[in-house]
Amino acid sequence: MTTDGPAGGSPNDDDAADFDGQAPHLVEHTVESAIAYQGSFLHVRRDRVRLPDAREAWREYILHPGAVVIVPILDDGRLVVERQYRHPMGRVMLEFPAGKLAHGEPPLSCARRELEEETGYQAAEWARAGVLHNAIAYSDEFIEVWFARGLSTGRRQLDEGEFLDVVVASEEALDRQAAAGVLTDAKSLVALMWLQNWRAGRWDVRWTSVG
Amino acid sequence: MTTDGPAGGSPNDDDAADFDGQAPHLVEHTVESAIAYQGSFLHVRRDRVRLPDAREAWREYILHPGAVVIVPILDDGRLVVERQYRHPMGRVMLEFPAGKLAHGEPPLSCARRELEEETGYQAAEWARAGVLHNAIAYSDEFIEVWFARGLSTGRRQLDEGEFLDVVVASEEALDRQAAAGVLTDAKSLVALMWLQNWRAGRWDVRWTSVG
Repeated sequence: MTTDGPAGGSPNDDDAADFDGQAPHLVEHTVESAIAYQGSFLHVRRDRVRLPDAREAWREYILHPGAVVIVPILDDGRLVVERQYRHPMGRVMLEFPAGKLAHGEPPLSCARRELEEETGYQAAEWARAGVLHNAIAYSDEFIEVWFARGLSTGRRQLDEGEFLDVVVASEEALDRQAAAGVLTDAKSLVALMWLQNWRAGRWDVRWTSVG
Repeated sequence: MTTDGPAGGSPNDDDAADFDGQAPHLVEHTVESAIAYQGSFLHVRRDRVRLPDAREAWREYILHPGAVVIVPILDDGRLVVERQYRHPMGRVMLEFPAGKLAHGEPPLSCARRELEEETGYQAAEWARAGVLHNAIAYSDEFIEVWFARGLSTGRRQLDEGEFLDVVVASEEALDRQAAAGVLTDAKSLVALMWLQNWRAGRWDVRWTSVG
């Protein structure tokens, strides 16, 4: 249901639940598209679009290959996390292991590679929990959330120029840090949300053994 | 505690909880900084940094003024959400109301302005729940999470070129859509996480009346 003014509705209506994915009155159509900036890491695209009212506007956004974030679950239930300096933030951030997809790389392959490179762990079982979109106004990035368990130690091998600490934390400690505003990395918060809902039996994931 | 290899540790250690914010062995220092791309919306900075091992690397990232996401809570407990076409995603997304800070604008002022402009609602009470950082590898953006209640209808006034539907949803419906992979917007997922934890009495927020 669409409302032009404030959405009132009856106590029983639940508009968002009814959405069928069709909303042609909101869609923008690309008229012209070009690369506006090609950096060593960031690629910016600039598109001219036709708005629903037939006027035109410009849209600028980052082209991103996609990424994964991994929740590595130790046999005792604790989690493997990282501390890493993030230059745009100007400080060390607490986060779950994560990494960008290489060209054409399937997300699970990327998750297995990044987990071992960054933490030294290999996992016997993997489950794809979900996906998040972290900057929908200006990036096409998606981040898949993967759980990993049956962990054993492999060989850590950081990328050149990558420095990070691998640490262990309980779910409760991470929850406290989220509540206190210390854990603020969005992908890690959503990954923690998935973990807590899965452990509570509320959100479902399917595990796969890997060879 | 820092580990070079896989983080083993004893069953009782909980490294992440002990972090005092000091990690000089991870910090990068800026050697040179310049604007690499100045678009109509995106501004890219490119910095040369000195790594912990004294080598150098380049860091590119978006300069962002910061943003707010608002959880508008109706008197019957349901929530006000939006459907908006997001060009980088190429589709209509379900999300809580949100917007960028104007230059020098305090987050609460931004939240009040965006809520009324986008949905037509005004709120008598506001609470800052927390903050998230949504793209720490390539943007300095922060998004503050604000709750709004005591809603009354004001006057909706969208920005030029802005088209969106205002809809109403229960917390349970949004939870189902998150579990099903329909609600994937990171700021909205983290906002939902805050709402659920606050309603469960687990995470605390402080309400303020506004005049």
